[in-house]
Amino acid sequence: MNNENEIKILMKDIGRKAKKASEILALASTEQKNTALKAASDEIKSSLPDIIAANKKDMEIAKGRGLAGAMVDRLMLNEERIKAIAKSIEDIMKLKDPIGDILDEQVRPNGLKISRVRVPLGVIGIIFESRPNVTADAGVLCLKSGNASILRCGSESTHSSRAIHACLVKGLKAAKLPEASIQLIPTQDRAAVGELLRLSDYVDIIVPRGGKSLIERVQNESRVPVMAHLDGICHVYVDKDANIDMATAIAVNAKMRRTGICGSAETLLIDSKVVQSFAPKILAALHEKGCEIRGDAKIKSVFPDAVDATEEDWGTEYLDAIVSVRAVNGVDGAIDHIAKYGSNHTDAIVTDSVPTAEKFLNEVDSAIVLHNASTQYADGGEFGMGAEIGISTGKMHARGPVGLEQLTSYKYLVRGNGQTRP
Amino acid sequence: MNNENEIKILMKDIGRKAKKASEILALASTEQKNTALKAASDEIKSSLPDIIAANKKDMEIAKGRGLAGAMVDRLMLNEERIKAIAKSIEDIMKLKDPIGDILDEQVRPNGLKISRVRVPLGVIGIIFESRPNVTADAGVLCLKSGNASILRCGSESTHSSRAIHACLVKGLKAAKLPEASIQLIPTQDRAAVGELLRLSDYVDIIVPRGGKSLIERVQNESRVPVMAHLDGICHVYVDKDANIDMATAIAVNAKMRRTGICGSAETLLIDSKVVQSFAPKILAALHEKGCEIRGDAKIKSVFPDAVDATEEDWGTEYLDAIVSVRAVNGVDGAIDHIAKYGSNHTDAIVTDSVPTAEKFLNEVDSAIVLHNASTQYADGGEFGMGAEIGISTGKMHARGPVGLEQLTSYKYLVRGNGQTRP
Repeated sequence: MNNENEIKILMKDIGRKAKKASEILALASTEQKNTALKAASDEIKSSLPDIIAANKKDMEIAKGRGLAGAMVDRLMLNEERIKAIAKSIEDIMKLKDPIGDILDEQVRPNGLKISRVRVPLGVIGIIFESRPNVTADAGVLCLKSGNASILRCGSESTHSSRAIHACLVKGLKAAKLPEASIQLIPTQDRAAVGELLRLSDYVDIIVPRGGKSLIERVQNESRVPVMAHLDGICHVYVDKDANIDMATAIAVNAKMRRTGICGSAETLLIDSKVVQSFAPKILAALHEKGCEIRGDAKIKSVFPDAVDATEEDWGTEYLDAIVSVRAVNGVDGAIDHIAKYGSNHTDAIVTDSVPTAEKFLNEVDSAIVLHNASTQYADGGEFGMGAEIGISTGKMHARGPVGLEQLTSYKYLVRGNGQTRP
Repeated sequence: MNNENEIKILMKDIGRKAKKASEILALASTEQKNTALKAASDEIKSSLPDIIAANKKDMEIAKGRGLAGAMVDRLMLNEERIKAIAKSIEDIMKLKDPIGDILDEQVRPNGLKISRVRVPLGVIGIIFESRPNVTADAGVLCLKSGNASILRCGSESTHSSRAIHACLVKGLKAAKLPEASIQLIPTQDRAAVGELLRLSDYVDIIVPRGGKSLIERVQNESRVPVMAHLDGICHVYVDKDANIDMATAIAVNAKMRRTGICGSAETLLIDSKVVQSFAPKILAALHEKGCEIRGDAKIKSVFPDAVDATEEDWGTEYLDAIVSVRAVNGVDGAIDHIAKYGSNHTDAIVTDSVPTAEKFLNEVDSAIVLHNASTQYADGGEFGMGAEIGISTGKMHARGPVGLEQLTSYKYLVRGNGQTRP
């Protein structure tokens, strides 16, 4: 399907169907939604061979294209990973349905009873890359929160995503919910994304999950509100009043526990006053774990294994075993560095001084700011949300982990007995 | 200033200053913000002659341009209206400062203490038309909620808005807050709006307040998230089970109390089953108040004074003493009509049947849905918010009246004692 006009018609049709489905989903009962989720999970378990066969096709194409090993690994599905997808659907099924929750209620002096009630957003467009399990996670989180979804997977996971999507659709059918409640865009033509971003009559919100270039394209082109999931340039700042053992443990965990997630630290900032006493130990521990150290002059002078950090390093999300390290002038220097180079995602301070910690918590303008804890806690599960679509780095609508509640809006219901306004 | 490049430089400078100011405002104390507001209010009272003189210039230009009487009236400032502006600033000063509020708090099993704390959005761009008092209301609501604002007034209120803005700046100075906390764009060149909409490095959110063409321009061009304030095509549906006296009173109040506000009703829907018995009385009451009735065939057959309603009428926000009236097939017909022609703003049902009312409340997808009350209650003050910038008709971020709390975001503060993620 290369004809631009055909894609326009296709996407408009997808949008229209999604909007129609969203009207039904908004009124669907928790039971009906859960029936669909249970059936989808069962379907995924019983379709295991089909999903693996589909994934094999994707893997072969990926290898043929010479995709990097880490990318191929993210793409790969085996029995264990597919069972984890099915379990993840059941976990989301068990979460409390947020729709209909009364957020607040008041009776006005004139007798009007005003309730603010949680409702779905409507239609959510999600654009994501590589990992095929996102097809299930994203579609299922939207469904449970009463939203219709339009999913656009990365081209490398086309076959796997379609196989998983087919199971979700069977689940919807089993619950007599519209099949268009979860749609997967059936073409990888880039023009389809452009059309999705223009479907403001049908789509309420776009969630882009992916690299900088995807997010920039979406923010430039979208006529639909965007819930931005920017990159995670996360910092750990080690203050002069830090406990060095704690600082070492947190720095190593924040960087090395998993290097490929958005909450992994990319830059370590060390108070200049303790560079000499702290840096050698902390950096040796990172180096021992196989982490490349890129330092400024001061860092290099106390840790000769470090290579030169360039200006570019401070703004780079490595998603790899590399850390940039800089000496800064106390907590103020750390706050300034983060304001300049950070991505408003997640940043941590290690210090035993409560006033210094509170200053950092207060003044660092990020979705998540931690004191004496690893940045790798930036995760919906760790926040008790059960599951998340990602971490929102924008301030509008939701900030931080985006779970079921963050995929909702609200409306005001006003009950009177004939009130007219004087 | 007609040079495109000069405007680009001007707007970038405004954006940069606003962002810098927002960083200071985010940390400003309630006392400091209130000092600025009190001083601004005093300054407005003592600058009364200057403001009236400035307003005279605007009025003369408006009359010279042949602006409609209603528009000229909206523009006019007299002693009473200027005192009301000063009082409105003091009212906002007295509202509770939302910044720093702890929205929720939890201790995770691993001992991490997670708090969600209210913070400002940052920099808010507000584009508005005609009424000069919005300069004060918008700037002051943003200031109280810790946000820097960039205001763009309608060209017809240039002189009045500048005079009011000068008082706000004096208030900021008196409190030693940055003058750039509230900026008024000093040119009416349309290109300045275009540049504002592209300042995504500095501006966090755009709030357009105005007619359809403004909002459409903003939604098409903006690279900054938009909190849409669409038009208010509000409906009153009179059900077969309505009390006719209540229905009459609500219909008259919803339409005629003030016709120029966004919560005024534009369309009256009447259950076909009671068109014959109810419509003559309700429509006569409206007609008596000077309201023009535009009806469909069924309505015309029972109320001959009605003129023909065209398809266009159902989607028109008159903001005037005109109402379109249609017979619909019960509550389902009303819900379908509103879904097709409404603007997701405010809609009301009049009925004595609780199940019918609940169906309407549940299924009408608008920011505010009322049972047995007038749509003219769609107002932040009536919701206990004290003051509002407008009514948001979008679902992202805030929905319904936008007061201080709706101009905020939140961040997560996580306090640990050395936790690393397993």
